[in-house]
Amino acid sequence: MNSASQTNAASKPLDGITVIDLTQIYQGPYATFLMAKAGANVIKVEPIMGEPSRIRAKVSGGASLPMAMLNVNKKGITLNLKTSKGKELFKRLIADADIVVENFTPGVMDRLGLGWEVLHQINPRLIYGSGTGYGLSGPDKDNQAMDVTIQASSGAMSVTGDPDGPPLRSGSSFIDFLSGVHLYAGIITALFERTRTGLGRLVEVSMQETAYPTMASNLGLVYRSKGKVPQRVGNRHGGLALAPYNVYEAKDGHIAIVCATEDHWVKILKSMGREDLATDERFSTNKVRVENIKRTDDFVEAWTRTITRSELFKLSKEFGFPAAPVRDLIEVMNDPHMHARGQLEWFDDPDLGRVVLPASPLIIHGAERVKTVASPSLGQHNEEIYGGKLGLSQTELQALKAEGVI
Amino acid sequence: MNSASQTNAASKPLDGITVIDLTQIYQGPYATFLMAKAGANVIKVEPIMGEPSRIRAKVSGGASLPMAMLNVNKKGITLNLKTSKGKELFKRLIADADIVVENFTPGVMDRLGLGWEVLHQINPRLIYGSGTGYGLSGPDKDNQAMDVTIQASSGAMSVTGDPDGPPLRSGSSFIDFLSGVHLYAGIITALFERTRTGLGRLVEVSMQETAYPTMASNLGLVYRSKGKVPQRVGNRHGGLALAPYNVYEAKDGHIAIVCATEDHWVKILKSMGREDLATDERFSTNKVRVENIKRTDDFVEAWTRTITRSELFKLSKEFGFPAAPVRDLIEVMNDPHMHARGQLEWFDDPDLGRVVLPASPLIIHGAERVKTVASPSLGQHNEEIYGGKLGLSQTELQALKAEGVI
Repeated sequence: MNSASQTNAASKPLDGITVIDLTQIYQGPYATFLMAKAGANVIKVEPIMGEPSRIRAKVSGGASLPMAMLNVNKKGITLNLKTSKGKELFKRLIADADIVVENFTPGVMDRLGLGWEVLHQINPRLIYGSGTGYGLSGPDKDNQAMDVTIQASSGAMSVTGDPDGPPLRSGSSFIDFLSGVHLYAGIITALFERTRTGLGRLVEVSMQETAYPTMASNLGLVYRSKGKVPQRVGNRHGGLALAPYNVYEAKDGHIAIVCATEDHWVKILKSMGREDLATDERFSTNKVRVENIKRTDDFVEAWTRTITRSELFKLSKEFGFPAAPVRDLIEVMNDPHMHARGQLEWFDDPDLGRVVLPASPLIIHGAERVKTVASPSLGQHNEEIYGGKLGLSQTELQALKAEGVI
Repeated sequence: MNSASQTNAASKPLDGITVIDLTQIYQGPYATFLMAKAGANVIKVEPIMGEPSRIRAKVSGGASLPMAMLNVNKKGITLNLKTSKGKELFKRLIADADIVVENFTPGVMDRLGLGWEVLHQINPRLIYGSGTGYGLSGPDKDNQAMDVTIQASSGAMSVTGDPDGPPLRSGSSFIDFLSGVHLYAGIITALFERTRTGLGRLVEVSMQETAYPTMASNLGLVYRSKGKVPQRVGNRHGGLALAPYNVYEAKDGHIAIVCATEDHWVKILKSMGREDLATDERFSTNKVRVENIKRTDDFVEAWTRTITRSELFKLSKEFGFPAAPVRDLIEVMNDPHMHARGQLEWFDDPDLGRVVLPASPLIIHGAERVKTVASPSLGQHNEEIYGGKLGLSQTELQALKAEGVI
């Protein structure tokens, strides 16, 4: 334990931890976003042309905001890892780093001569994080992967959609981010272990494997039905075992209502002003509500059509049953609740103007909050890192630039 | 650094860490599953009747497998926290624990007299993890939440589904698990910080806030379209900016294909044996393929209908473009790849028989793997923990049982 022990002063949890960040798109950058927001010194290393998200942001504006969101509080440098000088600079950066993270397909770093074995020799305390679609071993490891294809191969698509329609993807790239936070979690676990052993580890996360547990309910149905694959159920309960449980039309959009217990049902009736139906034999038990699921849903929807989403949300809080408005993204970006919590903020980005950016969802009370600094432009910190940290002269920097190394 | 420093011996990263686990259903139990699988000593504390998942497992079999999956490698005890003797026993457990985790609605622990302030007084090194729907502060904190309602309120539903259909939920409970791994990540970050400060923290994770970043692409479109909410796109690219990008019918089901670059298009044509079309003006650029998106999709589907999902998966690996079969859950449970990696295993559960269980997606090379031990039955380790750890006599145990305390 160091000299700071037993003091109560606010600090950033990852103060003093240096991260060399080779990651791209969403998965890896989310892992290093969480590190930067916990106070680590993250150096984002991009090819001379920029990482794919940066290139896409130039082509179509759609990737600009994700790039700005996920790369705040990072330093940005360029480096061509295919040149021998580039490899040498990289090894110098690695020499006193704590963490390196990449989400290339398996084997890329080995072919560059910069794989785990090599870097571990240079710096035995280094933690090496690898994020991939299918992992570093096994017959499928060389299959290319993106969020959508893993939604397919993991089974997530097979349980999404209507019974009479095709399998559907979730519109959110949830597997990229789910595996990104797993990558963060695995690396920090190894960082904790290092305080005991003094040694770094190779940490590996596969997108497909992070998706598996999210289907716990659906897998439970397969088990219960003795190996029969359950059909898709749209917005109804996965096992068609609860009612009401659906997305209903409201006066001004849609609302989700879940009745998980008989107590919830009574509360729903109360918020309708229809307590008189609490003993009505058409609805009095979950069993009869499920047996006549369309009748139940129609009854609930006849009510929800008469109220607005926010009225419903208020009633559900007042009476105590789980329900929520289906919000669109403009409502979500402006959500008063998340803004009040300081978890969304309006930020003046030098390129994009005034945008909404999220804080880290990892809230550690008493720790110092990291103030948002805009995502770096391409190579913005070349001079600071190569000049300041590695001590290269202006002449050397110019030469490296001219040679296409940085 | 302790005496184990600089040794290379395999160990479990969280060896010696004790977790008092009050969590229920999916979110919290997934966080403590990751802890147990990393070597922590997790003591699952349940009400006398069992946690909701256990009760549901008894009523319908559907929750049996999730309960068995997520609670492996934990000790199980019962404890009635509403009794004063129960509170006292709980405080004794807390006194030498490292971590306590709960996912009750905000305020429950405070009302029991067992909130952060109280427990922090008893054990200043304790890390307290709280998982909730909307967080511990802000106007929506008291709204009840479940995975489905947060899919609604977070905006995830608004981007899922067909353009002419209603908003749809993802069939996987991805927000429960996404927030569960964030909860793990926040707690382990605080555990690392504690090696420097000697002090525990209150760590907070809100489901809604973990869902926000997963919509990066969709939020990027809102930004680009100057605040217009984009329509749902089914299985097509969120921005309708890439083609082919869809789920197509195959000979034996469906397959997802993503063409993210012009290079991918050439590779898709090669795998069709139609390289001759590489310069065909109907398809030669992403721009024309998107402008005639139905023509492009029809052309691709005319091919995919002639091959099986596994043929497509093989071709995509051979030629190098992102594609994958839409697998059903029986295929996923039996996936040879995940079984070959040791990430899925056949396990003889004392209650359920032979079932498939997942390992932790956090793979730390060189660390000792935790061998699976079945999920505890209700109160299975009461004697071991209350008798062994806290030193209560058989007579005292009997009395506590008779009084409804354990």
